[in-house]
Amino acid sequence: MVRFFVSPEEMQPDFMSLTGENAQHAKVLRLKNGEEVLVCDGQGGESLCAISDVNDGQISLVVRHQQQSVTEAKVKVSIYMAFPKGDKLEHVIQKATELGAFEIVAFPSARCVSRPDEKSLRKKLDRWQKIAQSAAEQSGRGVIPKVVALPSYAEALKHAAQADKAILFYENEQAVTLKMSLQAGEFQSISLLSGPEGGLEAVEVEKAREAGFDICTLGKRILRCETAPLCALSAVMYHTGEF
Amino acid sequence: MVRFFVSPEEMQPDFMSLTGENAQHAKVLRLKNGEEVLVCDGQGGESLCAISDVNDGQISLVVRHQQQSVTEAKVKVSIYMAFPKGDKLEHVIQKATELGAFEIVAFPSARCVSRPDEKSLRKKLDRWQKIAQSAAEQSGRGVIPKVVALPSYAEALKHAAQADKAILFYENEQAVTLKMSLQAGEFQSISLLSGPEGGLEAVEVEKAREAGFDICTLGKRILRCETAPLCALSAVMYHTGEF
Repeated sequence: MVRFFVSPEEMQPDFMSLTGENAQHAKVLRLKNGEEVLVCDGQGGESLCAISDVNDGQISLVVRHQQQSVTEAKVKVSIYMAFPKGDKLEHVIQKATELGAFEIVAFPSARCVSRPDEKSLRKKLDRWQKIAQSAAEQSGRGVIPKVVALPSYAEALKHAAQADKAILFYENEQAVTLKMSLQAGEFQSISLLSGPEGGLEAVEVEKAREAGFDICTLGKRILRCETAPLCALSAVMYHTGEF
Repeated sequence: MVRFFVSPEEMQPDFMSLTGENAQHAKVLRLKNGEEVLVCDGQGGESLCAISDVNDGQISLVVRHQQQSVTEAKVKVSIYMAFPKGDKLEHVIQKATELGAFEIVAFPSARCVSRPDEKSLRKKLDRWQKIAQSAAEQSGRGVIPKVVALPSYAEALKHAAQADKAILFYENEQAVTLKMSLQAGEFQSISLLSGPEGGLEAVEVEKAREAGFDICTLGKRILRCETAPLCALSAVMYHTGEF
Protein backbone atom coordinates (compact mmCIF):
# COMPACT_ATOMS: atom_id res chain seq x y z
CA MET A 1 0.00 0.00 0.00
CA VAL A 2 1.19 3.51 -0.78
CA ARG A 3 2.48 5.32 2.28
CA PHE A 4 2.55 9.09 2.83
CA PHE A 5 4.32 10.90 5.63
CA VAL A 6 2.80 14.02 7.15
CA SER A 7 3.79 16.00 10.24
CA PRO A 8 2.23 14.81 13.53
CA GLU A 9 0.16 18.05 13.65
CA GLU A 10 -1.41 17.21 10.29
CA MET A 11 -2.73 13.86 11.58
CA GLN A 12 -6.51 14.13 12.15
CA PRO A 13 -8.90 11.51 13.56
CA ASP A 14 -11.66 11.63 10.88
CA PHE A 15 -10.74 13.56 7.74
CA MET A 16 -7.37 14.56 6.33
CA SER A 17 -5.91 16.06 3.21
CA LEU A 18 -2.61 15.59 1.43
CA THR A 19 -1.04 18.69 -0.08
CA GLY A 20 2.32 19.80 -1.53
CA GLU A 21 4.73 17.02 -2.48
CA ASN A 22 2.39 14.33 -1.15
CA ALA A 23 -0.42 15.51 -3.46
CA GLN A 24 2.01 15.64 -6.37
CA HIS A 25 3.18 12.14 -5.60
CA ALA A 26 -0.43 10.91 -5.40
CA LYS A 27 -1.05 12.46 -8.82
CA VAL A 28 1.99 10.71 -10.32
CA LEU A 29 0.68 7.42 -8.92
CA ARG A 30 -2.77 8.20 -10.45
CA LEU A 31 -4.55 7.37 -7.23
CA LYS A 32 -8.34 7.41 -7.55
CA ASN A 33 -11.39 7.83 -5.32
CA GLY A 34 -11.94 4.84 -3.08
CA GLU A 35 -8.36 3.64 -3.11
CA GLU A 36 -6.72 3.04 0.26
CA VAL A 37 -3.51 4.67 1.39
CA LEU A 38 -1.55 4.75 4.63
CA VAL A 39 -0.80 8.14 6.20
CA CYS A 40 2.04 8.11 8.75
CA ASP A 41 3.18 10.75 11.21
CA GLY A 42 6.78 9.58 10.96
CA GLN A 43 6.83 8.74 14.67
CA GLY A 44 5.03 5.42 14.51
CA GLY A 45 1.42 6.59 14.26
CA GLU A 46 -0.46 5.46 11.13
CA SER A 47 -3.95 6.03 9.67
CA LEU A 48 -5.48 3.78 7.07
CA CYS A 49 -7.44 6.15 4.79
CA ALA A 50 -9.68 5.99 1.73
CA ILE A 51 -9.41 8.67 -0.93
CA SER A 52 -12.64 10.69 -1.11
CA ASP A 53 -11.63 13.43 -3.54
CA VAL A 54 -8.76 14.12 -5.92
CA ASN A 55 -8.03 17.70 -6.91
CA ASP A 56 -5.02 19.46 -8.36
CA GLY A 57 -2.78 20.08 -5.38
CA GLN A 58 -5.03 18.41 -2.82
CA ILE A 59 -6.19 14.87 -2.04
CA SER A 60 -9.02 14.46 0.48
CA LEU A 61 -9.08 11.41 2.72
CA VAL A 62 -11.49 9.68 5.08
CA VAL A 63 -9.76 8.00 8.02
CA ARG A 64 -10.88 4.38 8.42
CA HIS A 65 -8.57 3.08 11.09
CA GLN A 66 -5.77 4.34 13.33
CA GLN A 67 -2.91 2.14 14.50
CA GLN A 68 0.69 2.04 15.65
CA SER A 69 3.20 1.01 13.01
CA VAL A 70 3.96 -2.72 13.04
CA THR A 71 7.07 -2.50 10.89
CA GLU A 72 9.43 -0.83 13.36
CA ALA A 73 12.30 -2.77 14.88
CA LYS A 74 12.04 -3.85 18.51
CA VAL A 75 15.46 -2.41 19.35
CA LYS A 76 16.45 1.17 18.56
CA VAL A 77 19.71 1.02 16.63
CA SER A 78 21.63 4.23 16.01
CA ILE A 79 24.26 4.33 13.27
CA TYR A 80 27.20 6.62 14.09
CA MET A 81 29.34 7.10 11.01
CA ALA A 82 32.36 9.36 10.47
CA PHE A 83 31.88 11.62 7.43
CA PRO A 84 32.85 9.54 4.39
CA LYS A 85 33.91 10.86 0.99
CA GLY A 86 31.53 11.51 -1.91
CA ASP A 87 27.94 10.31 -1.70
CA LYS A 88 28.61 7.28 0.48
CA LEU A 89 26.65 8.71 3.40
CA GLU A 90 23.59 9.00 1.15
CA HIS A 91 23.95 5.33 0.33
CA VAL A 92 24.26 4.43 4.03
CA ILE A 93 21.22 6.56 4.96
CA GLN A 94 19.06 4.90 2.32
CA LYS A 95 20.12 1.36 3.21
CA ALA A 96 20.17 1.87 6.98
CA THR A 97 16.60 3.20 6.76
CA GLU A 98 15.47 0.10 4.87
CA LEU A 99 17.26 -2.10 7.39
CA GLY A 100 15.39 -0.44 10.26
CA ALA A 101 17.86 2.02 11.84
CA PHE A 102 16.38 4.40 14.41
CA GLU A 103 18.71 7.28 13.52
CA ILE A 104 21.85 8.03 11.52
CA VAL A 105 24.44 10.31 13.08
CA ALA A 106 27.41 11.71 11.13
CA PHE A 107 30.46 13.26 12.78
CA PRO A 108 34.05 14.25 11.97
CA SER A 109 36.98 12.07 13.07
CA ALA A 110 40.75 12.56 12.75
CA ARG A 111 41.14 10.87 9.36
CA CYS A 112 37.99 12.26 7.71
CA VAL A 113 38.83 13.75 4.32
CA SER A 114 35.32 15.18 3.96
CA ARG A 115 34.51 17.91 6.50
CA PRO A 116 31.44 19.82 5.34
CA ASP A 117 31.29 23.41 6.64
CA GLU A 118 28.21 24.67 8.43
CA LYS A 119 26.51 26.13 5.38
CA SER A 120 26.96 23.10 3.14
CA LEU A 121 26.06 20.88 6.07
CA ARG A 122 22.67 22.56 6.46
CA LYS A 123 21.92 21.87 2.79
CA LYS A 124 23.20 18.33 3.05
CA LEU A 125 21.12 17.59 6.14
CA ASP A 126 17.98 18.63 4.23
CA ARG A 127 18.96 16.32 1.42
CA TRP A 128 19.87 13.46 3.77
CA GLN A 129 16.60 13.76 5.65
CA LYS A 130 14.70 13.56 2.34
CA ILE A 131 16.61 10.42 1.41
CA ALA A 132 15.62 8.88 4.76
CA GLN A 133 11.97 9.86 4.21
CA SER A 134 11.89 8.42 0.72
CA ALA A 135 13.53 5.17 1.88
CA ALA A 136 11.07 5.00 4.82
CA GLU A 137 8.14 5.31 2.39
CA GLN A 138 9.49 2.64 0.05
CA SER A 139 10.41 0.15 2.76
CA GLY A 140 7.16 0.59 4.70
CA ARG A 141 8.61 2.15 7.82
CA GLY A 142 6.37 3.90 10.35
CA VAL A 143 9.20 6.09 11.61
CA ILE A 144 11.50 8.27 9.54
CA PRO A 145 14.99 7.90 10.98
CA LYS A 146 16.42 11.25 12.03
CA VAL A 147 19.64 12.22 10.30
CA VAL A 148 21.89 14.22 12.61
CA ALA A 149 25.34 15.79 12.24
CA LEU A 150 27.47 16.33 15.33
CA PRO A 151 30.37 18.81 15.47
CA SER A 152 33.05 16.54 16.97
CA TYR A 153 34.14 13.00 17.69
CA ALA A 154 33.85 13.73 21.42
CA GLU A 155 30.18 14.73 20.95
CA ALA A 156 29.57 11.57 18.95
CA LEU A 157 31.01 9.42 21.74
CA LYS A 158 28.94 11.25 24.35
CA HIS A 159 25.67 10.80 22.46
CA ALA A 160 26.35 7.22 21.37
CA ALA A 161 27.29 6.17 24.90
CA GLN A 162 23.78 7.04 26.10
CA ALA A 163 22.41 3.86 24.48
CA ASP A 164 22.09 0.68 26.54
CA LYS A 165 25.02 -0.70 24.55
CA ALA A 166 27.57 1.24 22.50
CA ILE A 167 29.83 -0.64 20.09
CA LEU A 168 32.74 0.62 18.02
CA PHE A 169 34.07 -1.42 15.10
CA TYR A 170 37.84 -1.44 14.75
CA GLU A 171 39.79 -3.36 12.12
CA ASN A 172 42.69 -3.99 14.54
CA GLU A 173 40.43 -5.66 17.08
CA GLN A 174 40.57 -9.42 16.63
CA ALA A 175 39.37 -11.05 19.83
CA VAL A 176 36.02 -9.43 20.70
CA THR A 177 33.26 -10.18 18.22
CA LEU A 178 29.96 -8.36 17.77
CA LYS A 179 28.25 -11.56 18.93
CA MET A 180 30.09 -11.51 22.27
CA SER A 181 29.03 -7.93 22.79
CA LEU A 182 25.37 -8.53 21.90
CA GLN A 183 25.12 -11.74 23.92
CA ALA A 184 26.12 -9.87 27.09
CA GLY A 185 22.52 -8.81 27.72
CA GLU A 186 19.20 -7.58 26.38
CA PHE A 187 19.35 -4.02 25.09
CA GLN A 188 16.57 -1.60 24.16
CA SER A 189 18.93 0.75 22.35
CA ILE A 190 22.26 0.08 20.63
CA SER A 191 24.77 2.51 19.10
CA LEU A 192 27.03 1.24 16.30
CA LEU A 193 30.02 3.48 15.55
CA SER A 194 32.48 3.15 12.68
CA GLY A 195 35.19 5.24 11.07
CA PRO A 196 35.90 6.91 7.72
CA GLU A 197 37.90 5.55 4.73
CA GLY A 198 41.22 5.66 6.60
CA GLY A 199 39.77 4.10 9.76
CA LEU A 200 39.77 5.45 13.29
CA GLU A 201 43.04 6.29 15.04
CA ALA A 202 44.16 4.13 17.98
CA VAL A 203 43.80 7.09 20.33
CA GLU A 204 40.19 7.60 19.18
CA VAL A 205 39.45 3.95 19.83
CA GLU A 206 40.88 4.26 23.35
CA LYS A 207 38.68 7.28 24.03
CA ALA A 208 35.66 5.24 23.08
CA ARG A 209 36.76 2.42 25.35
CA GLU A 210 37.05 4.91 28.22
CA ALA A 211 33.55 6.15 27.39
CA GLY A 212 32.23 2.62 27.92
CA PHE A 213 32.15 1.32 24.35
CA ASP A 214 32.77 -2.30 23.43
CA ILE A 215 35.48 -2.45 20.75
CA CYS A 216 34.54 -5.20 18.29
CA THR A 217 35.67 -6.85 15.08
CA LEU A 218 33.45 -7.36 12.03
CA GLY A 219 35.54 -10.32 10.90
CA LYS A 220 38.80 -11.02 9.14
CA ARG A 221 38.01 -9.17 5.93
CA ILE A 222 38.48 -5.41 5.64
CA LEU A 223 35.11 -3.77 4.99
CA ARG A 224 34.77 -0.44 3.23
CA CYS A 225 33.57 2.38 5.45
CA GLU A 226 30.11 2.31 3.84
CA THR A 227 29.81 -1.49 4.12
CA ALA A 228 30.72 -1.83 7.81
CA PRO A 229 27.70 -0.04 9.37
CA LEU A 230 25.22 -1.85 7.09
CA CYS A 231 26.79 -5.24 7.78
CA ALA A 232 26.68 -4.55 11.52
CA LEU A 233 23.10 -3.26 11.38
CA SER A 234 21.97 -6.36 9.46
CA ALA A 235 23.63 -8.57 12.06
CA VAL A 236 22.04 -6.68 14.97
CA MET A 237 18.59 -6.95 13.38
CA TYR A 238 19.17 -10.67 12.86
CA HIS A 239 20.40 -11.10 16.43
CA THR A 240 17.40 -9.27 17.91
CA GLY A 241 14.95 -11.55 16.10
CA GLU A 242 13.78 -9.32 13.23
CA PHE A 243 14.27 -12.09 10.66
CA MET B 1 49.79 -5.37 3.13
CA VAL B 2 49.31 -5.01 -0.61
CA ARG B 3 47.79 -8.09 -2.19
CA PHE B 4 48.21 -9.23 -5.81
CA PHE B 5 46.27 -11.98 -7.51
CA VAL B 6 47.98 -14.18 -10.09
CA SER B 7 46.80 -17.37 -11.78
CA PRO B 8 47.55 -20.62 -9.91
CA GLU B 9 50.04 -21.54 -12.70
CA GLU B 10 52.03 -18.37 -12.02
CA MET B 11 52.59 -19.28 -8.37
CA GLN B 12 56.21 -20.45 -7.89
CA PRO B 13 57.89 -21.75 -4.72
CA ASP B 14 61.06 -19.56 -4.69
CA PHE B 15 61.00 -16.67 -7.15
CA MET B 16 58.11 -14.95 -8.90
CA SER B 17 57.47 -11.92 -11.05
CA LEU B 18 54.49 -9.64 -11.42
CA THR B 19 53.70 -8.43 -14.92
CA GLY B 20 50.85 -6.69 -16.79
CA GLU B 21 48.24 -4.99 -14.63
CA ASN B 22 49.86 -6.19 -11.42
CA ALA B 23 53.18 -4.54 -12.37
CA GLN B 24 51.34 -1.35 -13.32
CA HIS B 25 49.53 -1.39 -10.01
CA ALA B 26 52.80 -1.91 -8.13
CA LYS B 27 54.25 1.08 -9.99
CA VAL B 28 51.26 3.27 -9.04
CA LEU B 29 51.79 2.25 -5.40
CA ARG B 30 55.54 3.11 -5.75
CA LEU B 31 56.59 -0.18 -4.21
CA LYS B 32 60.35 -0.44 -3.62
CA ASN B 33 63.00 -3.11 -3.16
CA GLY B 34 62.70 -4.89 0.15
CA GLU B 35 58.99 -4.15 0.66
CA GLU B 36 56.75 -7.12 1.40
CA VAL B 37 53.68 -8.00 -0.62
CA LEU B 38 51.24 -10.88 -0.62
CA VAL B 39 50.73 -12.84 -3.85
CA CYS B 40 47.52 -14.90 -3.98
CA ASP B 41 46.41 -17.57 -6.43
CA GLY B 42 42.75 -16.61 -5.96
CA GLN B 43 41.96 -20.09 -4.67
CA GLY B 44 43.21 -19.67 -1.13
CA GLY B 45 46.98 -20.13 -1.66
CA GLU B 46 49.17 -17.18 -0.66
CA SER B 47 52.89 -16.36 -0.78
CA LEU B 48 54.49 -13.69 1.34
CA CYS B 49 57.15 -12.14 -0.90
CA ALA B 50 59.84 -9.45 -0.74
CA ILE B 51 60.45 -7.24 -3.77
CA SER B 52 63.92 -7.87 -5.18
CA ASP B 53 63.79 -5.77 -8.34
CA VAL B 54 61.50 -3.14 -9.86
CA ASN B 55 61.51 -2.62 -13.62
CA ASP B 56 59.09 -1.07 -16.04
CA GLY B 57 56.50 -3.74 -16.64
CA GLN B 58 57.99 -6.32 -14.28
CA ILE B 59 58.46 -6.67 -10.52
CA SER B 60 60.71 -9.49 -9.28
CA LEU B 61 59.90 -11.18 -6.02
CA VAL B 62 61.57 -13.57 -3.58
CA VAL B 63 59.14 -15.91 -1.85
CA ARG B 64 59.61 -15.91 1.91
CA HIS B 65 56.68 -17.97 3.13
CA GLN B 66 53.78 -19.94 1.68
CA GLN B 67 50.45 -20.31 3.47
CA GLN B 68 46.74 -20.89 3.09
CA SER B 69 44.56 -17.76 3.30
CA VAL B 70 43.23 -17.10 6.79
CA THR B 71 40.60 -14.57 5.74
CA GLU B 72 38.13 -16.90 4.03
CA ALA B 73 34.77 -17.62 5.63
CA LYS B 74 34.21 -21.03 7.21
CA VAL B 75 30.96 -21.55 5.30
CA LYS B 76 30.68 -21.22 1.53
CA VAL B 77 27.83 -18.80 0.85
CA SER B 78 26.56 -18.43 -2.71
CA ILE B 79 24.51 -15.36 -3.63
CA TYR B 80 21.86 -16.08 -6.27
CA MET B 81 20.40 -12.82 -7.53
CA ALA B 82 17.91 -12.21 -10.35
CA PHE B 83 19.27 -9.67 -12.87
CA PRO B 84 18.54 -6.23 -11.43
CA LYS B 85 18.32 -2.96 -13.36
CA GLY B 86 21.25 -0.62 -13.92
CA ASP B 87 24.52 -1.18 -12.13
CA LYS B 88 23.02 -2.71 -9.00
CA LEU B 89 24.61 -6.09 -9.65
CA GLU B 90 28.04 -4.40 -9.70
CA HIS B 91 27.26 -2.96 -6.28
CA VAL B 92 26.18 -6.37 -4.97
CA ILE B 93 29.28 -8.09 -6.39
CA GLN B 94 31.60 -5.57 -4.73
CA LYS B 95 29.88 -5.71 -1.35
CA ALA B 96 29.24 -9.47 -1.35
CA THR B 97 32.95 -10.01 -2.05
CA GLU B 98 33.91 -7.83 0.93
CA LEU B 99 31.39 -9.67 3.08
CA GLY B 100 32.94 -13.01 2.18
CA ALA B 101 30.63 -14.58 -0.43
CA PHE B 102 31.98 -17.69 -2.15
CA GLU B 103 30.32 -16.94 -5.49
CA ILE B 104 27.73 -14.63 -7.03
CA VAL B 105 25.29 -16.13 -9.52
CA ALA B 106 22.97 -13.99 -11.66
CA PHE B 107 19.94 -15.38 -13.49
CA PRO B 108 16.74 -14.19 -15.20
CA SER B 109 13.37 -14.47 -13.45
CA ALA B 110 9.83 -13.66 -14.64
CA ARG B 111 9.81 -10.03 -13.53
CA CYS B 112 13.36 -9.12 -14.56
CA VAL B 113 13.39 -5.94 -16.60
CA SER B 114 17.06 -6.34 -17.42
CA ARG B 115 17.83 -9.38 -19.58
CA PRO B 116 21.30 -9.04 -21.07
CA ASP B 117 21.77 -10.90 -24.37
CA GLU B 118 24.63 -13.34 -24.82
CA LYS B 119 27.05 -10.86 -26.34
CA SER B 120 26.56 -8.12 -23.77
CA LEU B 121 26.57 -10.77 -21.05
CA ARG B 122 30.04 -11.93 -22.03
CA LYS B 123 31.33 -8.36 -21.71
CA LYS B 124 29.50 -7.82 -18.45
CA LEU B 125 30.86 -11.04 -16.96
CA ASP B 126 34.40 -9.84 -17.67
CA ARG B 127 33.62 -6.56 -15.97
CA TRP B 128 31.87 -8.26 -13.02
CA GLN B 129 34.77 -10.65 -12.49
CA LYS B 130 37.17 -7.68 -12.39
CA ILE B 131 34.99 -5.96 -9.78
CA ALA B 132 35.13 -9.13 -7.68
CA GLN B 133 38.92 -9.31 -8.05
CA SER B 134 39.39 -5.68 -7.10
CA ALA B 135 37.11 -6.04 -4.06
CA ALA B 136 38.94 -9.25 -3.08
CA GLU B 137 42.27 -7.37 -3.20
CA GLN B 138 40.96 -4.47 -1.12
CA SER B 139 39.22 -6.56 1.49
CA GLY B 140 42.11 -9.00 1.91
CA ARG B 141 40.38 -12.11 0.54
CA GLY B 142 42.38 -15.18 -0.41
CA VAL B 143 39.75 -16.33 -2.89
CA ILE B 144 38.20 -14.31 -5.70
CA PRO B 145 34.47 -15.13 -5.76
CA LYS B 146 33.41 -16.47 -9.14
CA VAL B 147 30.72 -14.45 -10.89
CA VAL B 148 28.45 -16.68 -12.94
CA ALA B 149 25.39 -16.05 -15.13
CA LEU B 150 22.86 -18.84 -15.63
CA PRO B 151 20.39 -18.91 -18.54
CA SER B 152 17.17 -19.58 -16.60
CA TYR B 153 15.45 -19.55 -13.24
CA ALA B 154 15.17 -23.36 -13.42
CA GLU B 155 18.96 -23.62 -13.80
CA ALA B 156 19.45 -21.25 -10.87
CA LEU B 157 17.22 -23.43 -8.65
CA LYS B 158 19.04 -26.57 -9.75
CA HIS B 159 22.49 -25.16 -8.95
CA ALA B 160 21.48 -23.39 -5.73
CA ALA B 161 19.77 -26.54 -4.40
CA GLN B 162 23.12 -28.39 -4.49
CA ALA B 163 24.24 -26.52 -1.36
CA ASP B 164 23.70 -28.07 2.09
CA LYS B 165 21.00 -25.44 2.64
CA ALA B 166 19.17 -23.36 0.01
CA ILE B 167 17.12 -20.37 1.13
CA LEU B 168 14.84 -18.10 -0.91
CA PHE B 169 13.77 -14.72 0.46
CA TYR B 170 10.16 -13.80 -0.22
CA GLU B 171 8.43 -10.63 0.95
CA ASN B 172 5.10 -12.44 1.36
CA GLU B 173 6.57 -15.00 3.75
CA GLN B 174 5.96 -13.94 7.33
CA ALA B 175 6.32 -16.98 9.53
CA VAL B 176 9.65 -18.59 8.67
CA THR B 177 12.67 -16.48 9.56
CA LEU B 178 16.23 -16.84 8.33
CA LYS B 179 17.19 -17.72 11.89
CA MET B 180 14.82 -20.70 11.96
CA SER B 181 16.31 -21.95 8.73
CA LEU B 182 19.94 -21.54 9.85
CA GLN B 183 19.32 -23.04 13.28
CA ALA B 184 18.07 -26.26 11.72
CA GLY B 185 21.62 -27.61 11.42
CA GLU B 186 25.28 -27.00 10.61
CA PHE B 187 25.90 -26.30 6.95
CA GLN B 188 29.14 -26.21 4.97
CA SER B 189 27.53 -24.46 2.02
CA ILE B 190 24.50 -22.17 1.85
CA SER B 191 22.69 -20.67 -1.17
CA LEU B 192 20.80 -17.39 -0.71
CA LEU B 193 18.38 -16.58 -3.53
CA SER B 194 16.45 -13.35 -4.03
CA GLY B 195 14.41 -11.69 -6.74
CA PRO B 196 14.57 -8.59 -8.96
CA GLU B 197 12.96 -5.16 -8.38
CA GLY B 198 9.42 -6.49 -8.83
CA GLY B 199 10.03 -9.52 -6.64
CA LEU B 200 9.61 -13.19 -7.48
CA GLU B 201 6.24 -14.54 -8.65
CA ALA B 202 4.31 -16.88 -6.35
CA VAL B 203 4.70 -19.70 -8.86
CA GLU B 204 8.47 -19.21 -8.87
CA VAL B 205 8.52 -19.38 -5.09
CA GLU B 206 6.55 -22.64 -5.20
CA LYS B 207 9.02 -24.13 -7.65
CA ALA B 208 11.82 -23.32 -5.23
CA ARG B 209 9.90 -24.94 -2.39
CA GLU B 210 9.51 -28.09 -4.48
CA ALA B 211 13.26 -28.00 -5.18
CA GLY B 212 13.88 -28.15 -1.42
CA PHE B 213 14.41 -24.48 -0.63
CA ASP B 214 13.41 -22.91 2.68
CA ILE B 215 11.24 -19.84 1.99
CA CYS B 216 12.17 -17.15 4.50
CA THR B 217 11.39 -13.57 5.47
CA LEU B 218 14.01 -10.86 5.97
CA GLY B 219 11.73 -8.96 8.33
CA LYS B 220 8.77 -6.63 8.20
CA ARG B 221 10.40 -3.93 6.11
CA ILE B 222 10.55 -4.18 2.33
CA LEU B 223 14.19 -4.34 1.23
CA ARG B 224 15.35 -3.21 -2.19
CA CYS B 225 16.56 -6.00 -4.43
CA GLU B 226 20.20 -4.95 -3.97
CA THR B 227 19.87 -4.67 -0.17
CA ALA B 228 18.27 -8.07 0.49
CA PRO B 229 21.19 -10.33 -0.52
CA LEU B 230 23.75 -8.21 1.39
CA CYS B 231 21.58 -8.09 4.49
CA ALA B 232 21.11 -11.86 4.36
CA LEU B 233 24.82 -12.48 3.70
CA SER B 234 25.79 -10.28 6.68
CA ALA B 235 23.37 -12.21 8.90
CA VAL B 236 24.68 -15.59 7.71
CA MET B 237 28.28 -14.53 8.37
CA TYR B 238 27.24 -13.33 11.84
CA HIS B 239 25.34 -16.56 12.51
CA THR B 240 28.26 -18.74 11.46
CA GLY B 241 30.62 -17.00 13.86
CA GLU B 242 32.60 -14.74 11.54
CA PHE B 243 32.18 -11.72 13.81
